[in-house]
Amino acid sequence: MGDIVVNGEAHFFEGVEKLLEIWFAKSESSSGEGDARMASREQWESILDHVHCKILNVVESGAQVAYLLSESSLFVSKRRIILKTCGTTLCLQALPYILDLMKKHCGLDVVADCFYSRKNFMKPNQQPHPHKTFQDEIVYLDQMLSASASYCLGRMNGDCWFLYTLNHAGNMSLPAVVEPDQTLEILMTDLDQDVMSQFTLWDAEGKKKNQDVVTKESGIADLIPKSELSVCLFDPCGYSLNGLLPKGEYWTIHITPEKDFSYVSFETNLLTKDYSSLIHKVLDVFKPGKFTMTLFASKTAPVDTSEWLLKGPCLDGFARLDSQVAQLLHYSLFYTNFAKKV
Amino acid sequence: MGDIVVNGEAHFFEGVEKLLEIWFAKSESSSGEGDARMASREQWESILDHVHCKILNVVESGAQVAYLLSESSLFVSKRRIILKTCGTTLCLQALPYILDLMKKHCGLDVVADCFYSRKNFMKPNQQPHPHKTFQDEIVYLDQMLSASASYCLGRMNGDCWFLYTLNHAGNMSLPAVVEPDQTLEILMTDLDQDVMSQFTLWDAEGKKKNQDVVTKESGIADLIPKSELSVCLFDPCGYSLNGLLPKGEYWTIHITPEKDFSYVSFETNLLTKDYSSLIHKVLDVFKPGKFTMTLFASKTAPVDTSEWLLKGPCLDGFARLDSQVAQLLHYSLFYTNFAKKV
Repeated sequence: MGDIVVNGEAHFFEGVEKLLEIWFAKSESSSGEGDARMASREQWESILDHVHCKILNVVESGAQVAYLLSESSLFVSKRRIILKTCGTTLCLQALPYILDLMKKHCGLDVVADCFYSRKNFMKPNQQPHPHKTFQDEIVYLDQMLSASASYCLGRMNGDCWFLYTLNHAGNMSLPAVVEPDQTLEILMTDLDQDVMSQFTLWDAEGKKKNQDVVTKESGIADLIPKSELSVCLFDPCGYSLNGLLPKGEYWTIHITPEKDFSYVSFETNLLTKDYSSLIHKVLDVFKPGKFTMTLFASKTAPVDTSEWLLKGPCLDGFARLDSQVAQLLHYSLFYTNFAKKV
Repeated sequence: MGDIVVNGEAHFFEGVEKLLEIWFAKSESSSGEGDARMASREQWESILDHVHCKILNVVESGAQVAYLLSESSLFVSKRRIILKTCGTTLCLQALPYILDLMKKHCGLDVVADCFYSRKNFMKPNQQPHPHKTFQDEIVYLDQMLSASASYCLGRMNGDCWFLYTLNHAGNMSLPAVVEPDQTLEILMTDLDQDVMSQFTLWDAEGKKKNQDVVTKESGIADLIPKSELSVCLFDPCGYSLNGLLPKGEYWTIHITPEKDFSYVSFETNLLTKDYSSLIHKVLDVFKPGKFTMTLFASKTAPVDTSEWLLKGPCLDGFARLDSQVAQLLHYSLFYTNFAKKV
């Protein structure tokens, strides 16, 4: 794909997502159902107008509803909302509307926890306010939430990953996490261009590709088999997937294939003891030049974190750069970034 | 001590230190001695003029020279310089002069490692440039050093501790650390005012106190016995100590006792397996309301870091807040902060 030059600026798309995860609870005075899945597609559509993105399609399991968006994904389960949006979307603009919808329509009147995180943007100056700096995002979030703490894992002036959360040891008002919860993210850049060339809508002969064939032939379908999938191949390029498993587990992939700013994110809350084979499969499918891995593990989560407590997994062909661990109130958080050995 | 109001602004002193530690090596082409202790007191005095502080006294062991400064300390050993300065001193202004002195006078022409660190200032806006923000300090340091990485441990908008270093996994040009090295810092605030009242030059009857008596009666002398000490009690209040042990081990204490901005720092590179009893003694002597603890441990250092890898030491009467671990190239770095339980 050649660069499209608009008004003298080279074509660019920020694949790096803004990731907002909110956990709700129902106070004793709430008369509602206490279930976020009560919100309709139309209600979400009207909230997503503020974010500047649209619902493309939807897939449901017993436990949750997964919306594939024009810019990433929305997952709605009984008491958790995950909104992940890329590009120049206004992810945080959704927050006051989500809080209002949960309270008035779903009976969820208590914010039980919140995590807003993202990798450093490739081009922060192209973001709309408040997304240009994480400091501005903190100020914005603090208008709606209280007792937050914010962290920068990795390098202040390089590859890093920011987290805003209510889940910190100083916040004793936070309800205890009752269920085991763990989330793995693999945020990849500098990807192999032969791999990336699969994620275009049109083939070399100008024929439209079938997105299910791309999902299968790329190896993506085999990453977590037996999932309910919702997939989109974008025009002219780009790819998104939401995958659902029965008991509230999900996975999601978003691909920005362009050479100058290639980016792929993989995220899952699969409740496994060991992510090694999954991590290897993801790296084999996408072949990144660099990637950042984060793992959140609640105290009762099944994932074995002993290796992560030291330096993170050792992965053939990759040099481990920064490795950090941060202890939150109910979670341990692990950050590691890697670069291909040369 | 009542507040002294000057031009409408309440009296304030920034106890939080800027801490610069530089390790040197001698290249094959250097014809000098390769020993930083070749630098004279006069040469250091002229460098410290740029920092805006003075040498008060000096103590030597076989391995190192410790200068007690009007604002904190300077330790000079064969190939390591530690400059720690508080208040509104210009610590980093010393760096180009130190590099020049080491190269021309001591034959140390290679910067083998560098660590610049500090806690968040209480009043950053009262600092001179480039010390108002850590971002500015990074820019300043990067004019003289290359291949750095910078980190923020703790909370971006709260209690945190910044580090600028050459010692990171991406920097493969760094020489390996040959000797075991470990450094513990305990940075205390909100200190007990009965304890702090000991560190005034004049007693209630207007009689001048003896600094050696204060060192003994406060319990400081017993923290690390059998040390060569250099002590200063400031007028009207404040206290500094440098302590040396034979084999290149040091400890240093700096006390800002005023109630509105009380601050005490304790630092040592004592090569012990377990700092627990020392940490307890320091907390018993100073009785802080809050404190931050950092530990650097090289791969060959004797300190047992298994407890630090989890959440840091558990200390009676204190709640552990943030606990973080960062893996550098030759060191593991541990950060924990604590607040008195109420």
